[in-house]
Amino acid sequence: MAAQTVASTSTSTSATASTSVDLGPAAALSCRECGQRFELGPIFACAECFGPLEVAYDLPSGSPEELRKRIEAGPANIWRYAPLLPVPADVADKPNLNPGWTKLVKADNLARELGVTGGLFIKDDSGNPTHSFKDRVVAQALEAARAFGFTTLSCSSTGNLAGAVGAAAARAGFRSCVFIPHDLEQGKVVMAAVYGGELVGIEGNYDDVNRFCSELIGDPLGEGWGFVNVNLRPYYAEGSKTLAYEICEQLGWRLPDQLVVPIASGSQLTKIDKGLQELIKLGLVEDKPYKIFGAQAEGCSPVSTAFKAGHDVVRPQKPNTIAKSLAIGNPADGPYVLDIARRTGGAVEDVNDEQVVDAIKLLARTEGIFAETAGGVTVGVTKKLIEAGLLDPALTTVVLNTGDGLKTLDAVAETSQATAVIRPSLAAFRDAGLAAH
Amino acid sequence: MAAQTVASTSTSTSATASTSVDLGPAAALSCRECGQRFELGPIFACAECFGPLEVAYDLPSGSPEELRKRIEAGPANIWRYAPLLPVPADVADKPNLNPGWTKLVKADNLARELGVTGGLFIKDDSGNPTHSFKDRVVAQALEAARAFGFTTLSCSSTGNLAGAVGAAAARAGFRSCVFIPHDLEQGKVVMAAVYGGELVGIEGNYDDVNRFCSELIGDPLGEGWGFVNVNLRPYYAEGSKTLAYEICEQLGWRLPDQLVVPIASGSQLTKIDKGLQELIKLGLVEDKPYKIFGAQAEGCSPVSTAFKAGHDVVRPQKPNTIAKSLAIGNPADGPYVLDIARRTGGAVEDVNDEQVVDAIKLLARTEGIFAETAGGVTVGVTKKLIEAGLLDPALTTVVLNTGDGLKTLDAVAETSQATAVIRPSLAAFRDAGLAAH
Repeated sequence: MAAQTVASTSTSTSATASTSVDLGPAAALSCRECGQRFELGPIFACAECFGPLEVAYDLPSGSPEELRKRIEAGPANIWRYAPLLPVPADVADKPNLNPGWTKLVKADNLARELGVTGGLFIKDDSGNPTHSFKDRVVAQALEAARAFGFTTLSCSSTGNLAGAVGAAAARAGFRSCVFIPHDLEQGKVVMAAVYGGELVGIEGNYDDVNRFCSELIGDPLGEGWGFVNVNLRPYYAEGSKTLAYEICEQLGWRLPDQLVVPIASGSQLTKIDKGLQELIKLGLVEDKPYKIFGAQAEGCSPVSTAFKAGHDVVRPQKPNTIAKSLAIGNPADGPYVLDIARRTGGAVEDVNDEQVVDAIKLLARTEGIFAETAGGVTVGVTKKLIEAGLLDPALTTVVLNTGDGLKTLDAVAETSQATAVIRPSLAAFRDAGLAAH
Repeated sequence: MAAQTVASTSTSTSATASTSVDLGPAAALSCRECGQRFELGPIFACAECFGPLEVAYDLPSGSPEELRKRIEAGPANIWRYAPLLPVPADVADKPNLNPGWTKLVKADNLARELGVTGGLFIKDDSGNPTHSFKDRVVAQALEAARAFGFTTLSCSSTGNLAGAVGAAAARAGFRSCVFIPHDLEQGKVVMAAVYGGELVGIEGNYDDVNRFCSELIGDPLGEGWGFVNVNLRPYYAEGSKTLAYEICEQLGWRLPDQLVVPIASGSQLTKIDKGLQELIKLGLVEDKPYKIFGAQAEGCSPVSTAFKAGHDVVRPQKPNTIAKSLAIGNPADGPYVLDIARRTGGAVEDVNDEQVVDAIKLLARTEGIFAETAGGVTVGVTKKLIEAGLLDPALTTVVLNTGDGLKTLDAVAETSQATAVIRPSLAAFRDAGLAAH
């Protein structure tokens, strides 16, 4: 019944007739459950079966060589893939943060420590404008918001998304209104507020914030509002495909053998799989098997629990982990993640908070990359999967870091301190035993 | 006498005969005061007159068209300019953080607010691997350290440099030992420590740390140590030339009319000028006048004070400003900055801490860029220079943001808070007056 309410009220937030919408190759929305198609619009649930909607495309024709050349001649950001995204052809000319084309770092030092011989890469999305992968998805939602005539960009968030929405709205000349739990850490509040949009603290936890936002979408008070992760979610989610595109192009138009992807809602992992399938279909990469592994924190591991138990359904959990950007206890795309992990021969694994911290420090120490806790989860899970024999160290492996350590300093603060504190004298330095050796 | 000690002891830290050194087009070190040339080595002061040394080049021959093509075909980082830097030709194949090629953002919203009609751009160096321009200079120092056979990378720092050195050393497989004042803010300590190198807190202030490092360089205890900002400084400083190269290439191989550059030691500004002059000399850009403006915080404004007073010497100040990354009270390159500002028809100006905060928020609100305090200084000074009629709003202007707001959250914390805190109900939301309008 909740789903029905959502589906029927969500259509009332459409600010523009969907027939006039130009979102490039996006042809329609289609239900992931029953396949029913709908005109492009700010809707997110199937009117027939209440299943989630996703973007269906008229993908470009022409030879793979031509398309590769066209992409390679494009800008050094996600818009090089505009022909494969729900955005108008002239998207690169509109004011936005131009995220993406982040570094794929060949992590030879880490590979040695983990015993990986087939090539280990970190896709480091801390290089995005607001230092998380959220810039990729928000950039798609912004184009959808423009197409549907929305003038306010909104979301519920506990961190990365708030900053990404605030920044994107500021740059694009949109009003923004971001909803957060009122007792969020000071640093996250500052980051969300500095871009000058409305920032509303809700007296309650993140679930209360989410519930309130769902109410607001169905109410005239929210008229003209694009909630990037609710009524614009089908477009928003497509942004994660660009991770798949970039990884393959940066590998020389080649599929990796194995990918390790963090799971919050599970949307990112499913869209990476979708992106890889599109590249195969278009002939941009040679078809071959690849395995997708999902990574969770033990304190919020509903999907890995289901995977290990052999279940198809994901039982919700109450999150309790330092990996707060992954702390979604009831992940909407959980079942799809299970399906992809099983179909590709991957797995879903989790690590505890101590292992998360160790992995953050391992990555920093070996590659000079300071990841947020979500990156500690993926690196930690990679290590665990290798030790368990589930991830083949002889194959090319790509591990995602989706955020920046500067945003989760607390995770490593206790164990990252000065080696020594000394008086400013050579004698004191000698006594500390730190001289060249 | 102090300078003499430095010059004579510094040669003793050479770990390799300089004749075998391959640093690409770098031909020698030359004294900026008397022009005397020295073989490439870990020295930084002239043995004749104790003036600062800088790198002299054999710049590439060949047509500008060929060189442009060669650069454009290079990697999306500073190594596309390897033919113009003191690094070996195969530098891109060695493990380093590959900084640079950061965004040049066309800031139309900010331009409107400031009344700039000739095109306003932000060169946003927060996009570097450790989120400050320091990655550019450390990357040069690392190559010099490799060439001279050093195995430890070191520096004195109060923030950005510590992270940049720690990360670069980790990635390159170097030992690192970074010296900081022992009472640094917790966040900066964590950032400096997380990469796993030695981090030494010195009981004293930043001047004490610097003095201690100078002692250490001249002592056997520091044998084999490359101090990026001391005995490797001539190479290190050259990294700032890449800002000039990138700005011109990103403008379509064109000189900007006006640049606004922050001043700490003043080295960055002088090297940007050097880079522009090289581009002209090589025919990569058309020769035309450009003006360079220097930006300081009022609480540490020795150069702007000297500029306004018409002095050629810079009188040291005791810093007291929130722009800590610019808080060098006795800037080594101050006189050179004065000369460049006067020669090009620019100026040096300063803004107070309140104006710094306002400018950080102005840039965030208009362009979605969250700058550190140094970026608040340059944007604030730009505004002030326009109001004073010193910067021409009808000309193409590039303003540097050299760091990331996440590192100086305190500056904006007080004034960046939630717009409202409400109960999770539509009625409460309506009463707060935040609905669509």
